[in-house]
Amino acid sequence: MSNCVFCKIIDGEIPSYTIYEDEYVKAFLDISQATPGHTLVVPKKHVANIYEYDEDLAEKVFARIPKIARAIKKSAPDIVGMNIVNNNGELAYQSVFHSHFHLIPRYSKDDGFSMHFQDNSEKYNEDALEQIKENIAKSMEE
Amino acid sequence: MSNCVFCKIIDGEIPSYTIYEDEYVKAFLDISQATPGHTLVVPKKHVANIYEYDEDLAEKVFARIPKIARAIKKSAPDIVGMNIVNNNGELAYQSVFHSHFHLIPRYSKDDGFSMHFQDNSEKYNEDALEQIKENIAKSMEE
Ligand SMILES: [Zn+2]
Ligand SMILES: [Zn+2]
Repeated sequence: MSNCVFCKIIDGEIPSYTIYEDEYVKAFLDISQATPGHTLVVPKKHVANIYEYDEDLAEKVFARIPKIARAIKKSAPDIVGMNIVNNNGELAYQSVFHSHFHLIPRYSKDDGFSMHFQDNSEKYNEDALEQIKENIAKSMEE
Repeated sequence: MSNCVFCKIIDGEIPSYTIYEDEYVKAFLDISQATPGHTLVVPKKHVANIYEYDEDLAEKVFARIPKIARAIKKSAPDIVGMNIVNNNGELAYQSVFHSHFHLIPRYSKDDGFSMHFQDNSEKYNEDALEQIKENIAKSMEE
Protein backbone atom coordinates (compact mmCIF):
# COMPACT_ATOMS: atom_id res chain seq x y z
CA MET A 1 0.00 0.00 0.00
CA SER A 2 1.49 3.24 -1.17
CA ASN A 3 1.08 5.29 2.01
CA CYS A 4 1.60 2.53 4.57
CA VAL A 5 4.64 3.13 6.78
CA PHE A 6 5.30 -0.61 7.25
CA CYS A 7 5.11 -1.29 3.50
CA LYS A 8 7.73 1.48 3.13
CA ILE A 9 9.94 -0.15 5.78
CA ILE A 10 9.52 -3.52 4.01
CA ASP A 11 10.50 -1.91 0.69
CA GLY A 12 13.52 -0.24 2.32
CA GLU A 13 12.13 3.19 1.50
CA ILE A 14 12.16 3.97 5.23
CA PRO A 15 15.16 2.58 7.16
CA SER A 16 14.69 0.22 10.10
CA TYR A 17 16.75 -1.70 12.65
CA THR A 18 16.13 -5.09 11.06
CA ILE A 19 16.85 -8.19 13.09
CA TYR A 20 15.42 -10.82 10.73
CA GLU A 21 14.03 -10.97 7.22
CA ASP A 22 12.95 -13.65 4.78
CA GLU A 23 10.55 -14.04 1.88
CA TYR A 24 7.46 -13.66 4.08
CA VAL A 25 8.27 -11.56 7.14
CA LYS A 26 10.42 -8.72 8.37
CA ALA A 27 11.29 -8.21 12.04
CA PHE A 28 12.62 -4.85 13.19
CA LEU A 29 12.88 -2.78 16.37
CA ASP A 30 9.82 -0.80 17.39
CA ILE A 31 11.09 2.76 17.51
CA SER A 32 9.13 3.39 20.72
CA GLN A 33 11.08 0.58 22.56
CA ALA A 34 8.48 0.14 25.30
CA THR A 35 11.24 -2.05 26.74
CA PRO A 36 14.75 -2.57 25.28
CA GLY A 37 14.55 -5.09 22.46
CA HIS A 38 10.86 -4.41 21.69
CA THR A 39 10.51 -5.92 18.20
CA LEU A 40 7.78 -5.99 15.57
CA VAL A 41 7.20 -9.03 13.36
CA VAL A 42 5.38 -7.98 10.20
CA PRO A 43 4.11 -9.96 7.20
CA LYS A 44 5.51 -8.59 3.93
CA LYS A 45 2.07 -8.91 2.41
CA HIS A 46 -0.08 -5.95 3.43
CA VAL A 47 -2.94 -7.18 5.59
CA ALA A 48 -4.66 -4.70 7.88
CA ASN A 49 -5.49 -6.99 10.78
CA ILE A 50 -5.82 -10.57 12.03
CA TYR A 51 -9.15 -11.04 10.24
CA GLU A 52 -7.47 -10.66 6.82
CA TYR A 53 -4.98 -13.53 7.21
CA ASP A 54 -5.66 -16.77 5.38
CA GLU A 55 -4.27 -20.00 6.86
CA ASP A 56 -1.23 -20.01 4.60
CA LEU A 57 -0.12 -16.48 5.52
CA ALA A 58 -0.76 -17.16 9.23
CA GLU A 59 1.46 -20.24 9.07
CA LYS A 60 4.24 -18.42 7.27
CA VAL A 61 4.31 -15.46 9.64
CA PHE A 62 3.82 -17.34 12.88
CA ALA A 63 6.32 -20.07 12.11
CA ARG A 64 9.06 -17.45 12.59
CA ILE A 65 7.87 -16.04 15.91
CA PRO A 66 9.30 -18.69 18.30
CA LYS A 67 12.74 -18.38 16.70
CA ILE A 68 12.72 -14.58 16.94
CA ALA A 69 11.43 -14.78 20.54
CA ARG A 70 14.28 -17.13 21.48
CA ALA A 71 16.83 -14.77 19.92
CA ILE A 72 15.47 -11.75 21.79
CA LYS A 73 15.48 -13.66 25.09
CA LYS A 74 19.05 -14.81 24.48
CA SER A 75 20.22 -11.29 23.62
CA ALA A 76 20.11 -9.97 27.21
CA PRO A 77 20.63 -11.91 30.44
CA ASP A 78 18.16 -9.76 32.41
CA ILE A 79 15.13 -10.69 30.29
CA VAL A 80 12.78 -12.70 32.52
CA GLY A 81 9.59 -12.74 30.46
CA MET A 82 8.03 -11.84 27.15
CA ASN A 83 4.66 -10.49 26.07
CA ILE A 84 3.61 -11.14 22.49
CA VAL A 85 0.83 -8.80 21.47
CA ASN A 86 -1.21 -8.26 18.32
CA ASN A 87 -3.61 -5.32 18.32
CA ASN A 88 -6.60 -5.04 16.03
CA GLY A 89 -8.55 -1.82 15.81
CA GLU A 90 -7.84 1.67 17.08
CA LEU A 91 -9.57 1.07 20.42
CA ALA A 92 -7.32 -1.99 20.90
CA TYR A 93 -4.17 0.20 20.50
CA GLN A 94 -3.52 -0.50 16.81
CA SER A 95 -1.85 2.59 15.37
CA VAL A 96 -0.39 1.25 12.09
CA PHE A 97 -2.98 -0.54 10.00
CA HIS A 98 -0.58 -3.13 8.60
CA SER A 99 -0.87 -6.15 10.89
CA HIS A 100 2.09 -6.66 13.24
CA PHE A 101 3.09 -8.64 16.31
CA HIS A 102 4.86 -6.93 19.19
CA LEU A 103 7.51 -9.02 20.96
CA ILE A 104 8.13 -7.20 24.24
CA PRO A 105 10.89 -8.58 26.45
CA ARG A 106 10.21 -8.08 30.14
CA TYR A 107 12.73 -7.10 32.79
CA SER A 108 10.67 -5.98 35.79
CA LYS A 109 7.14 -4.96 36.73
CA ASP A 110 7.72 -1.29 35.94
CA ASP A 111 9.87 -1.71 32.83
CA GLY A 112 7.63 0.22 30.40
CA PHE A 113 4.92 -2.28 29.52
CA SER A 114 1.93 -3.46 31.48
CA MET A 115 -1.45 -5.11 31.01
CA HIS A 116 -4.57 -5.33 33.09
CA PHE A 117 -6.93 -8.32 32.85
CA GLN A 118 -10.12 -7.81 34.86
CA ASP A 119 -11.21 -10.99 36.65
CA ASN A 120 -14.92 -11.47 35.95
CA SER A 121 -15.08 -15.11 36.99
CA GLU A 122 -17.79 -14.30 39.57
CA LYS A 123 -19.81 -12.25 37.08
CA TYR A 124 -21.06 -14.95 34.70
CA ASN A 125 -23.09 -18.02 35.58
CA GLU A 126 -23.07 -21.26 33.58
CA ASP A 127 -25.98 -20.17 31.39
CA ALA A 128 -24.27 -16.90 30.49
CA LEU A 129 -21.01 -18.69 29.58
CA GLU A 130 -22.92 -21.30 27.59
CA GLN A 131 -24.66 -18.52 25.65
CA ILE A 132 -21.35 -16.75 24.85
CA LYS A 133 -19.87 -20.07 23.75
CA GLU A 134 -22.87 -20.87 21.54
CA ASN A 135 -22.71 -17.48 19.83
CA ILE A 136 -19.03 -17.94 18.95
CA ALA A 137 -19.36 -21.62 17.99
CA LYS A 138 -22.25 -20.72 15.68
CA SER A 139 -20.14 -18.01 13.99
CA MET A 140 -17.35 -20.57 13.46
CA GLU A 141 -19.68 -22.65 11.32
CA GLU A 142 -20.97 -19.86 9.09
CA MET B 1 1.61 -33.23 31.94
CA SER B 2 -0.24 -34.87 34.79
CA ASN B 3 -0.91 -31.83 36.95
CA CYS B 4 -1.40 -29.24 34.20
CA VAL B 5 -4.88 -27.74 34.22
CA PHE B 6 -4.87 -27.13 30.45
CA CYS B 7 -3.79 -30.71 29.73
CA LYS B 8 -6.74 -31.79 31.88
CA ILE B 9 -9.09 -29.52 29.90
CA ILE B 10 -7.68 -30.93 26.65
CA ASP B 11 -8.24 -34.48 27.91
CA GLY B 12 -11.80 -33.59 28.97
CA GLU B 13 -10.97 -34.36 32.60
CA ILE B 14 -11.93 -30.77 33.46
CA PRO B 15 -14.94 -29.37 31.52
CA SER B 16 -14.63 -26.25 29.40
CA TYR B 17 -16.74 -24.03 27.18
CA THR B 18 -15.15 -25.23 23.94
CA ILE B 19 -15.65 -23.15 20.83
CA TYR B 20 -13.28 -25.00 18.48
CA GLU B 21 -11.20 -28.15 18.52
CA ASP B 22 -9.13 -30.15 16.05
CA GLU B 23 -6.14 -32.47 16.08
CA TYR B 24 -3.71 -29.74 17.16
CA VAL B 25 -5.54 -27.06 19.13
CA LYS B 26 -8.42 -26.49 21.49
CA ALA B 27 -10.10 -23.09 21.92
CA PHE B 28 -12.28 -22.47 24.96
CA LEU B 29 -13.59 -19.56 27.01
CA ASP B 30 -11.25 -18.09 29.61
CA ILE B 31 -13.19 -18.46 32.83
CA SER B 32 -12.08 -14.97 33.93
CA GLN B 33 -13.79 -13.39 30.85
CA ALA B 34 -11.78 -10.14 31.02
CA THR B 35 -14.30 -9.13 28.35
CA PRO B 36 -17.26 -11.21 27.08
CA GLY B 37 -15.98 -13.77 24.57
CA HIS B 38 -12.42 -13.83 25.98
CA THR B 39 -11.08 -17.06 24.49
CA LEU B 40 -7.91 -19.11 24.91
CA VAL B 41 -6.30 -20.95 22.00
CA VAL B 42 -4.11 -23.75 23.32
CA PRO B 43 -1.88 -26.31 21.55
CA LYS B 44 -2.83 -29.86 22.51
CA LYS B 45 0.86 -30.66 22.86
CA HIS B 46 2.13 -29.44 26.22
CA VAL B 47 4.66 -26.68 25.68
CA ALA B 48 5.35 -24.28 28.52
CA ASN B 49 5.99 -21.11 26.54
CA ILE B 50 6.76 -19.59 23.12
CA TYR B 51 10.41 -20.65 23.31
CA GLU B 52 9.41 -24.34 23.24
CA TYR B 53 7.52 -24.27 19.93
CA ASP B 54 9.20 -25.68 16.85
CA GLU B 55 8.20 -24.28 13.44
CA ASP B 56 5.77 -27.09 12.74
CA LEU B 57 3.80 -26.66 15.98
CA ALA B 58 3.78 -22.87 15.56
CA GLU B 59 2.30 -23.24 12.08
CA LYS B 60 -0.36 -25.67 13.23
CA VAL B 61 -1.49 -23.57 16.19
CA PHE B 62 -1.32 -20.17 14.56
CA ALA B 63 -3.02 -21.22 11.33
CA ARG B 64 -6.26 -21.49 13.34
CA ILE B 65 -6.10 -18.10 15.06
CA PRO B 66 -7.45 -15.86 12.25
CA LYS B 67 -10.47 -18.13 11.78
CA ILE B 68 -11.24 -18.14 15.51
CA ALA B 69 -10.71 -14.36 15.70
CA ARG B 70 -13.16 -13.84 12.83
CA ALA B 71 -15.76 -16.03 14.57
CA ILE B 72 -15.43 -14.13 17.85
CA LYS B 73 -15.75 -10.78 16.07
CA LYS B 74 -18.82 -11.99 14.20
CA SER B 75 -20.46 -13.30 17.38
CA ALA B 76 -21.33 -9.88 18.80
CA PRO B 77 -22.14 -6.68 16.88
CA ASP B 78 -20.59 -4.41 19.54
CA ILE B 79 -17.06 -5.83 19.20
CA VAL B 80 -14.88 -3.04 17.77
CA GLY B 81 -11.38 -4.43 18.34
CA MET B 82 -9.39 -7.43 19.45
CA ASN B 83 -6.20 -7.91 21.44
CA ILE B 84 -4.34 -11.17 20.92
CA VAL B 85 -1.91 -11.77 23.76
CA ASN B 86 0.59 -14.49 24.62
CA ASN B 87 2.30 -14.23 27.99
CA ASN B 88 5.60 -15.89 28.81
CA GLY B 89 6.89 -15.93 32.37
CA GLU B 90 5.26 -15.08 35.66
CA LEU B 91 6.34 -11.43 35.52
CA ALA B 92 4.68 -11.21 32.08
CA TYR B 93 1.32 -12.37 33.56
CA GLN B 94 1.59 -16.05 32.64
CA SER B 95 -0.33 -18.01 35.29
CA VAL B 96 -0.78 -21.40 33.58
CA PHE B 97 2.48 -22.83 32.29
CA HIS B 98 0.97 -24.49 29.24
CA SER B 99 1.37 -21.99 26.41
CA HIS B 100 -1.84 -20.23 25.36
CA PHE B 101 -3.05 -17.28 23.30
CA HIS B 102 -5.68 -14.93 24.69
CA LEU B 103 -8.16 -13.56 22.14
CA ILE B 104 -9.78 -10.62 23.89
CA PRO B 105 -12.62 -8.90 22.03
CA ARG B 106 -12.84 -5.19 22.76
CA TYR B 107 -15.98 -3.17 23.27
CA SER B 108 -14.85 0.10 24.87
CA LYS B 109 -11.84 1.65 26.62
CA ASP B 110 -12.96 0.52 30.06
CA ASP B 111 -14.31 -2.92 29.13
CA GLY B 112 -12.04 -5.00 31.41
CA PHE B 113 -8.76 -5.17 29.50
CA SER B 114 -6.06 -2.56 29.02
CA MET B 115 -2.41 -2.25 28.10
CA HIS B 116 0.19 0.40 28.57
CA PHE B 117 3.10 0.85 26.14
CA GLN B 118 5.65 3.40 27.33
CA ASP B 119 6.93 5.59 24.51
CA ASN B 120 10.73 5.67 24.79
CA SER B 121 11.39 6.97 21.28
CA GLU B 122 13.28 9.96 22.71
CA LYS B 123 15.34 7.79 25.07
CA TYR B 124 17.56 5.89 22.62
CA ASN B 125 19.92 7.37 20.06
CA GLU B 126 20.95 5.62 16.83
CA ASP B 127 23.97 3.99 18.44
CA ALA B 128 21.88 2.54 21.25
CA LEU B 129 19.30 1.14 18.81
CA GLU B 130 22.06 -0.25 16.60
CA GLN B 131 23.57 -2.00 19.62
CA ILE B 132 20.23 -3.58 20.65
CA LYS B 133 19.68 -4.70 17.06
CA GLU B 134 23.17 -6.21 16.85
CA ASN B 135 22.69 -8.15 20.08
CA ILE B 136 19.45 -9.71 18.84
CA ALA B 137 20.68 -10.34 15.28
CA LYS B 138 23.75 -12.07 16.70
CA SER B 139 21.56 -14.33 18.87
CA MET B 140 19.50 -15.24 15.77
CA GLU B 141 22.57 -16.73 14.16
CA GLU B 142 23.70 -18.83 17.09
ZN1 LIG C 1 1.42 -2.06 4.55
ZN1 LIG D 1 -0.30 -28.90 29.76
